[in-house]
Amino acid sequence: MGGRTIKHILIALPELNEGHRERLRAAGAGNDIRFVEANEVAPADIEWAEVIVGNVPAPLLHEPGKLEFYQLCSSGADAYVAEGILDRRTILATCTGAYSQTVAEHALASTLMLQKNLHLYRDAQRRHEWTDMGRVGTMEGAVVLVVGLGEIGCYYARMAKALGAYVIGVKRRASEKPDYVDELYLTAQLDEVLGRADVVMSVLPGSAATEHFYTAERFRAMKRSCIFVNCGRGNAVAMDVLEQALRGGEIACAAVDVFEIEPLPASSPLWDLDNLLVTPHASGFYHLPATVERMVDICVKNLAAYLAGGELMNVVDFNTGYKK
Amino acid sequence: MGGRTIKHILIALPELNEGHRERLRAAGAGNDIRFVEANEVAPADIEWAEVIVGNVPAPLLHEPGKLEFYQLCSSGADAYVAEGILDRRTILATCTGAYSQTVAEHALASTLMLQKNLHLYRDAQRRHEWTDMGRVGTMEGAVVLVVGLGEIGCYYARMAKALGAYVIGVKRRASEKPDYVDELYLTAQLDEVLGRADVVMSVLPGSAATEHFYTAERFRAMKRSCIFVNCGRGNAVAMDVLEQALRGGEIACAAVDVFEIEPLPASSPLWDLDNLLVTPHASGFYHLPATVERMVDICVKNLAAYLAGGELMNVVDFNTGYKK
Repeated sequence: MGGRTIKHILIALPELNEGHRERLRAAGAGNDIRFVEANEVAPADIEWAEVIVGNVPAPLLHEPGKLEFYQLCSSGADAYVAEGILDRRTILATCTGAYSQTVAEHALASTLMLQKNLHLYRDAQRRHEWTDMGRVGTMEGAVVLVVGLGEIGCYYARMAKALGAYVIGVKRRASEKPDYVDELYLTAQLDEVLGRADVVMSVLPGSAATEHFYTAERFRAMKRSCIFVNCGRGNAVAMDVLEQALRGGEIACAAVDVFEIEPLPASSPLWDLDNLLVTPHASGFYHLPATVERMVDICVKNLAAYLAGGELMNVVDFNTGYKK
Repeated sequence: MGGRTIKHILIALPELNEGHRERLRAAGAGNDIRFVEANEVAPADIEWAEVIVGNVPAPLLHEPGKLEFYQLCSSGADAYVAEGILDRRTILATCTGAYSQTVAEHALASTLMLQKNLHLYRDAQRRHEWTDMGRVGTMEGAVVLVVGLGEIGCYYARMAKALGAYVIGVKRRASEKPDYVDELYLTAQLDEVLGRADVVMSVLPGSAATEHFYTAERFRAMKRSCIFVNCGRGNAVAMDVLEQALRGGEIACAAVDVFEIEPLPASSPLWDLDNLLVTPHASGFYHLPATVERMVDICVKNLAAYLAGGELMNVVDFNTGYKK
C-alpha cells in the first residue's frame, strides 16, 4: 500500500441524496472527493481530477491528460467517444443497465397503447366524441422483434414474453439466446425476419453504424399492420422517412421517444400524425426512482473497483462506442 | 332416444363466419335451426324458439313460456335477469370468459399508459409541445388491487404479477387463492386494504349490490397517488363522485371505460379532465379476433350440452345476476 497516491475524484451526479453521497464517499475513502453539480463544473475542476464520476458537458473536456478513469452516469457514451473529447488512454465506463427498466417499461406502455388504440381514444376524448375505434391488437401470440438485444432490449423482451408474445431478438454480436427469446439473429440478418414482425421495438445505440438504419425500404418490408417503437437513438430513423412510412401506410403506427433533432421542432409535421405517438426523449432519465438507485449502485461499485485495481463493469470501446 | 322432440333453435350471434355456423349447426344437429341477425329478430322468432343463442333485444322478451334455454353471447346478464324479461324457469347462461382477454388487456394498457404519463404526452403532442412530464410509475413492486376477481380480474392479475406487481384480489365469495394473487379477501373486507393500493382495477358486474360501490369516502381512503381503472360496469361509480375525486386530487388519475350514462353525454365535465382517460365502453366487444372464437366455443359447447342433457357452463342465478 506504501506508494499509493491520493486521487482527486470529481463527482457530478444528478439526483443524489445524502445516503447516496455517503456511499460514494465510502467508495472513495482515503482520496480527495469533490461534489459538484454537472452544470456548474469549471475547467479547473476537470484539470484537477484523476477520476470523474458523472456527465460533465463534453465540450469542456479537451482530452484531459491527467484523467485516468471516467465513469459516466448515462447508458450511452456517444458524446464522449467523439474525437477530441477524451484521451483514448482514459478508461471510460457507462451506467448501462441503470435505465433498462424505465426505458423498457415506457416502450411496453407505448406498444400496448397503440395496440389498444388508446392514442386515438385520447384524441376522441378531447373532441368529446364517443367513437368506437374498432379492431385492436394484443401481445398474446404477436411476433415481437427486438432490434438491439442489450439490457433494455432484454428487459422489454422478457415482459413481452410474459404477456404471451413470440419474441425474436436481433443483436450485433453472437451470444447465447436467453430463455425468453424464441429466436435470435445477428443484426446482419435483420432483413430475413423484418417481414414477420407485428411489433418492431428498436433500441439501437447512437453510432455511425446505426445512422439511418431504418430506410424507406425497411419500412416497406414491414407488415402494413406493424407497430414500430423507437426508444434507442434518433439517428436510426430519418424524420422524413418515418413520416412517409406513417403517411403512406407502410406500417400501422409508431411510438417514438427519440428524434434526429431534439427537441423536435414545433414546425415538424410529425407532431400532427394521428398514428404516431411522440414523447420527448422521456423514457430514460430519472423519472423512475429505481433508476437513481441503480445508477448510484454502478458508480459506487466501479469507483471502488477502479481504486482497488479490480474489474470494472460497462467499459466502453472507443472504436465502436459499445461496451467492450 | 325415442321420445326426444325436435327443438326450435334461434341463433342470433354477431360476427359469425361460415366455419362458426357449421360448428353451431353440428352442435344442434337433428333440430330445427334458424339463423337471424340480433337486430332483425321478430316477436314470432322468439315465440317459435325453445332455445335462443345470442343477445336479442331484452324488451322483445316477455317471459316467453316455451323458452327452455337461453344462451347469451355477452359476459353480463344484467338486462336479462330484470323483472318481466325471462320466465325464471328458463335456464340462462352467459359467455363469461370469452371477453376476459380483451377487457383485461385494455385495462392493463390503460394502467401502463397512466403510469407512464402517456395520456399527458399525447395531449402535449397535440399542442406541439416538447415537455417533460416528470415522475412515472411502474408495475414492478406496485400494489395492485383487483376488485372483482372473476375471469377478467384473474387475467389482469396474472399479467400484473408477470410485470412484477404485488397483487391483492377481492371477491364476493370465498375461494382458493390463485398463485398469481398474493393476498385474497372478501369484498366485505375491501376497506381494510384499499389504502395500500397503487392501482385499483375494478371489474365489478352491474347489479344492485354494486350500485355506487365507489363512494366519495372510498376514493378518499385511496392513496393520493392511486390509479383507478374501471372496466366493469358504470353503475359502480356515480359520475359526480368520480369527477370530484379526480378534481380534488383524492386519487392521481383514472381510466374509465364504463359510465352510468352511455354514451357519455358530450356535455359531461368528465371529457375535459386531464387526469382521466375516457374510452367508450370499447374494452370488450369483438375488437380482438380471439374473442369471437371463444364466444363461439362457449355457445357450441353449451348448446350441445343442453341438447344432450349434459352439464352447462356459466349458468346464471336470477336472484344475484351472477354465475351459480
